[in-house]
Amino acid sequence: MRNRLVLHTLFLLAAIATSRAQTQINVMPMPSGMQIGTGQLTIDSSFSVAITGFHDEELERAIQRFATELSLQTGIRFRSASSESSSPTLRIHTEHGRDAVQELGEDESYALSINESGITLAAPNPLGILHGLQTFLQLVEPGSNGFIVPAVTITDHPRFAWRGLLIDVGRHFIPLDVLKRNLDGMAAVKMNVLHLHLSDDQGFRVESKRFPKLQEMGSDGLYYTQNEIRDLVSYAHDRGIRILPEFDTPGHSGSWFVGYPELASNPGRYTLEPGGIDSVTDPTREATYKFLDKFIAEMAQLFPDAYFHIGGDEVNGKHWDANPKIQAFIRSHGMKNNPDLQAYFNRRLQVILSKHNKIMIGWDEVLHPDLPKTILIQSWRGQESLATAARQGYSGLLSFGYYLDLMWPAARHYAVDPMSGGAATLSPEEKTRILGGEACMWTEWVIPENIDSRIWPRTAAIAERLWSPQEVQDPGSMYFRLQELSWRLEWLGLTHTSGEVLMLHRMAGIDDIRALRTFAEVVEPVKDYTRMNGVKGPWDFRAPLNHLVDAASPESKAARHFSDVVRGYVEGGHKDQATEAQIRNSLTTWRDNDAKLHPLLEQSFLLRDIAPLSADLSAVASAGLQALDYLDKSRPSPEAWRAQQLALTEQAKTPKAELLLMIVAPVQQLIACTAE
Amino acid sequence: MRNRLVLHTLFLLAAIATSRAQTQINVMPMPSGMQIGTGQLTIDSSFSVAITGFHDEELERAIQRFATELSLQTGIRFRSASSESSSPTLRIHTEHGRDAVQELGEDESYALSINESGITLAAPNPLGILHGLQTFLQLVEPGSNGFIVPAVTITDHPRFAWRGLLIDVGRHFIPLDVLKRNLDGMAAVKMNVLHLHLSDDQGFRVESKRFPKLQEMGSDGLYYTQNEIRDLVSYAHDRGIRILPEFDTPGHSGSWFVGYPELASNPGRYTLEPGGIDSVTDPTREATYKFLDKFIAEMAQLFPDAYFHIGGDEVNGKHWDANPKIQAFIRSHGMKNNPDLQAYFNRRLQVILSKHNKIMIGWDEVLHPDLPKTILIQSWRGQESLATAARQGYSGLLSFGYYLDLMWPAARHYAVDPMSGGAATLSPEEKTRILGGEACMWTEWVIPENIDSRIWPRTAAIAERLWSPQEVQDPGSMYFRLQELSWRLEWLGLTHTSGEVLMLHRMAGIDDIRALRTFAEVVEPVKDYTRMNGVKGPWDFRAPLNHLVDAASPESKAARHFSDVVRGYVEGGHKDQATEAQIRNSLTTWRDNDAKLHPLLEQSFLLRDIAPLSADLSAVASAGLQALDYLDKSRPSPEAWRAQQLALTEQAKTPKAELLLMIVAPVQQLIACTAE
Repeated sequence: MRNRLVLHTLFLLAAIATSRAQTQINVMPMPSGMQIGTGQLTIDSSFSVAITGFHDEELERAIQRFATELSLQTGIRFRSASSESSSPTLRIHTEHGRDAVQELGEDESYALSINESGITLAAPNPLGILHGLQTFLQLVEPGSNGFIVPAVTITDHPRFAWRGLLIDVGRHFIPLDVLKRNLDGMAAVKMNVLHLHLSDDQGFRVESKRFPKLQEMGSDGLYYTQNEIRDLVSYAHDRGIRILPEFDTPGHSGSWFVGYPELASNPGRYTLEPGGIDSVTDPTREATYKFLDKFIAEMAQLFPDAYFHIGGDEVNGKHWDANPKIQAFIRSHGMKNNPDLQAYFNRRLQVILSKHNKIMIGWDEVLHPDLPKTILIQSWRGQESLATAARQGYSGLLSFGYYLDLMWPAARHYAVDPMSGGAATLSPEEKTRILGGEACMWTEWVIPENIDSRIWPRTAAIAERLWSPQEVQDPGSMYFRLQELSWRLEWLGLTHTSGEVLMLHRMAGIDDIRALRTFAEVVEPVKDYTRMNGVKGPWDFRAPLNHLVDAASPESKAARHFSDVVRGYVEGGHKDQATEAQIRNSLTTWRDNDAKLHPLLEQSFLLRDIAPLSADLSAVASAGLQALDYLDKSRPSPEAWRAQQLALTEQAKTPKAELLLMIVAPVQQLIACTAE
Repeated sequence: MRNRLVLHTLFLLAAIATSRAQTQINVMPMPSGMQIGTGQLTIDSSFSVAITGFHDEELERAIQRFATELSLQTGIRFRSASSESSSPTLRIHTEHGRDAVQELGEDESYALSINESGITLAAPNPLGILHGLQTFLQLVEPGSNGFIVPAVTITDHPRFAWRGLLIDVGRHFIPLDVLKRNLDGMAAVKMNVLHLHLSDDQGFRVESKRFPKLQEMGSDGLYYTQNEIRDLVSYAHDRGIRILPEFDTPGHSGSWFVGYPELASNPGRYTLEPGGIDSVTDPTREATYKFLDKFIAEMAQLFPDAYFHIGGDEVNGKHWDANPKIQAFIRSHGMKNNPDLQAYFNRRLQVILSKHNKIMIGWDEVLHPDLPKTILIQSWRGQESLATAARQGYSGLLSFGYYLDLMWPAARHYAVDPMSGGAATLSPEEKTRILGGEACMWTEWVIPENIDSRIWPRTAAIAERLWSPQEVQDPGSMYFRLQELSWRLEWLGLTHTSGEVLMLHRMAGIDDIRALRTFAEVVEPVKDYTRMNGVKGPWDFRAPLNHLVDAASPESKAARHFSDVVRGYVEGGHKDQATEAQIRNSLTTWRDNDAKLHPLLEQSFLLRDIAPLSADLSAVASAGLQALDYLDKSRPSPEAWRAQQLALTEQAKTPKAELLLMIVAPVQQLIACTAE
């Protein structure tokens, strides 16, 4: 009974959310303040923009990009970006310029007012203008007499000052153009930090002129030149986004040692192994600090941001344990253990960073009372860890709950709030130390072809969590707006939807992939670390990622939709005939798909391993159809039948080919229903 | 009866073609010589390439691009482009290098041999290597134990030396990156000339440093800088493609006059009008030739190709008629009429071009006995016109029958042969003067978002006509290979398939576009000049192209497939139940689509005009379903019913919203069938 009640409430909430969303304004992240007006403004080729107040070339470029995006969205070519018209459609006013280097906590607020006669957008500085223009672009839609924007007054500002996306370019290199289109996506959802994890055991990805063997020997030739980094930093700055560099040390730093083995705790000859290099930095040699000082001096120039991330996570103590000189150093310096040695290392690093005017950031493990309160903690461990730091006076960022590589549904990320759990009990002053959070795109299983689909659209839910008021929490409204945002993101060149088709063609090797698409639409990659845990032997970062698990969306839209429809049907007492027809239609397609897919599965080695799951889809769909037959007859199903079907469907829940079939739970709901 | 026989033969041919294609090699254009071997070669990450003989950086870049494309197609990252392995997978041998400027008629032949132990690719020069690598890429497919290429021996060379694609960047500017991805597409189908129509009445698209008002006043700011042109020329050269510039004159040259009105036949003040500028060059003033001499000197440097296209088509005589000075000039120089004046102009132009080491090309109209036999005629009028020129000793290219903007099906272009019709009766020597042809992408109704879908995949059929032996003519085989090529082309970044989805979202303004896609899949844009002829008032090249006619594919794959299935069903005596079920399934989807689409049609002004055609789709599908019901009952349908349905379906053939419903003819076939 409790179960029924919960389901019923959820369904009601979803229904309310959907209807509200449709009469509401379709913006993501949801603005902090909004009043819907009456009427609308038509957008046509006479659209013009005028700027008053502060004015510079960067703002001009922003208006130019805005005009280009508006052109793409509407197909209308606008005469010119800004105009001297006396009655412009859009009046932009800003008071003063931005700093050459974007700072944490700069005012990002804006006020956008749209009525039938025009639009005004005002902000203290151009950052707010950038955000306001993105809000405006999301409001444009085809109306009955032309493209329109609804009348609305929005006053908006972010809840958190730090709204980041980490991209790990160490495990798999991500080319510059892919980063740029992702910066465009970030700007669309008002994120303001791109955190680049630039080195790891598998590759070192930035050109150092001082220590060229870092990139030359520590990578497969794929790295960013310094000119490319400067280009990226300026591209990001134009979009109101800071670039935060991370060079992970003393752990996750194997790629450094190929060129500079003297930095390793066990010097020797290192080569880039398939699984990456297993060693850590030696914190006991003065030469290590001399190297780091020169290296950081160079990188501090290249990356203008005030913050500098030194990683500091997951240091495997075995290498320090194995080196008698290191253990002797620990004892001779009055330290107790390896964590003390890491704290010593971090203190030395922090002094170097400070000399080069950088503020240190590290993962949870760097937290140590010996370090100054100015450092920033990024937490992969959770709000409790963050709260502990905040109580001690340290500021922090949440990344726990925002790991995109775990393939969670958007709603699960959305429910994670930096101020919840352990952080909820902090004092108001302590709470100010929680600066925001970062979505994390670790790339063990991610390559340029599929990275967009792992980041988008789910990251928009995290962006909303970090921008919008804490009360904005309704997953129904979130999903509605997420889907409407998703297709708009593809206009920016992101390939989160279109890329899948290319990968399916690669697997099939033929033009007709309809049956494969039907199958791919209802599966998801396995969750959490299941895939990594299933690897036999060392994980090989060079292995091809060309199976269905690499192409399938992390969250099946079709399955979520089916699940919603079944829930509505069951909650409504399974009476609605149109809904039943809709369910039958889906189930019939799925039941018949296995036979259509089979020739392909036999033909291609890349698809052979999905055969059992394709058979499951057919069997589960058949069970669902039989359940509907029982419901139609208004007679309870035999208990033996139910037991058999539930066993069959339960079996279909086990992952196969690293994929999960996502329609099993709603079919089980239908089966359960036939008991009454 | 004759009709039945023809249909039956066609169907048989298609069936043969399909089965042959499946056991044959899936390459487009079809090689001139091919022997299928036994067995296959597996492609894995150990794949390596070795080059013997001639070797340069351009060849290295070609191998690098090949490795990148092979990586994309397979998802396998290859260690390095070329290797020093003693047993490489692919051995490449070429004898000598290419000229710095690619010449017409350079040897493009290659020999590719694949067996279980490896691949050899040999060619006299790197052009053949480029073509052989493209053939190889098309042969790679996922097999049952890995990616494979079938054993085959191919010796291949082109039928015609000139295999071009014209892109009109005058009417609508096409950005550099779009041209580049189209060059990649051209290289994939072994085309070797990109002809850029660089100026017209709507815009002048190249930077002239000598006469900067050409691009600055004669365009909306969208033009290629000289650096961009150099970049494009070198990008094309790397891919074995020449860039042919066209500056159309004395007609189609309105954009020149905005900055330099003194060149016009009726000097005055010109501005870029919505319909373009209606005037022609004045051939009677010496200053015109001084200008052209300096301009051509500059452009001859910028475009290294030996040929230079001066247009010369469609000169509207009214401007010359209206100017008494021009008419006096005609009389005083002993000319009879305006065509004589144009011939005078062309002779003067030809002398200038010759001085700058360029060979003149022009459209049919430039043909005149006073011009030297070295000039080249490009024919939009047809093989007869080309044959006339060839008999007089002029060489020529065919473009008649290859106008992509007319929205013909690929098979119709495919059936046009440069040596057929008037050209078939030429002597062997005269035939050597027919150098090839060019597909033409005129852009009155084409913009960057839809240009790929207007060019691809249909242009591959024209590429095959110009490369493969004349006997290769089977449309069934062509379509089969065209579809298999089409998805591979999207790996090059072409958007001929994926772009449509974005445009449909723009029209719908929402995420769920399933019903719109179903509709879009069975319509095609109106053919020939129907759309231009329907324009009321002057055609405005700035008007938004954001309706369904701008997004819909020129050739409906779904309709062609449906038509094939219905033909098979009818020819087989409408007995096959599985085929009938398939037909029913399609018809039911189409019948029910109108109701699903209606909410969208009411919501968006961009879709409202398709409502009548959506209703037609539903009605036609219903008629088809009723026909199947009669056939099931094995009783003839009442004549009155047939008359009514044929009237209804005939009405559904009339274009609406500039679209044609493509499933009407096969449904009429079903209806006709019920008479017996």
